[in-house]
Amino acid sequence: MTWIEKDNALEREIRTPDFLSAFNLVSRLVAPAEALNHHPDVAFGWGYVRIRLTTHDAGGLTDKDRTLAARIDEAIKPFAG
Amino acid sequence: MTWIEKDNALEREIRTPDFLSAFNLVSRLVAPAEALNHHPDVAFGWGYVRIRLTTHDAGGLTDKDRTLAARIDEAIKPFAG
Repeated sequence: MTWIEKDNALEREIRTPDFLSAFNLVSRLVAPAEALNHHPDVAFGWGYVRIRLTTHDAGGLTDKDRTLAARIDEAIKPFAG
Repeated sequence: MTWIEKDNALEREIRTPDFLSAFNLVSRLVAPAEALNHHPDVAFGWGYVRIRLTTHDAGGLTDKDRTLAARIDEAIKPFAG
């Protein structure tokens, strides 16, 4: 786990070799997010992906975020070590 | 064109019905970005996509950004009207 708790959210930043690899990594988040019906805020571009998890309805972190973080870690392992 | 010039960048924000539609819209940016070898900074989540274009090497807006903006508009037209 390389998530940082910050401003009532879990955040993880991953460096990637270029834009396409960043997009490919982002595309791996979609299935876990849809499966849990809980959705990250994502920022990406050339060489980076930033993922932010919070439970907007609850105004902060919940178990939903921690579960999604673990599923995302698993999904992006082939890309992000 | 619904791009706004702001802080030496072109920005466009699009509302979407949900997370998957936001991701699908984002996925349309990839081909134009790769084709032009010029890459946006993208933020998205449930119901929104924000795209930011600037030429980092030049420290501001260039024709590359305007060309990519036009190509993105074309690529996302089926999704963003």
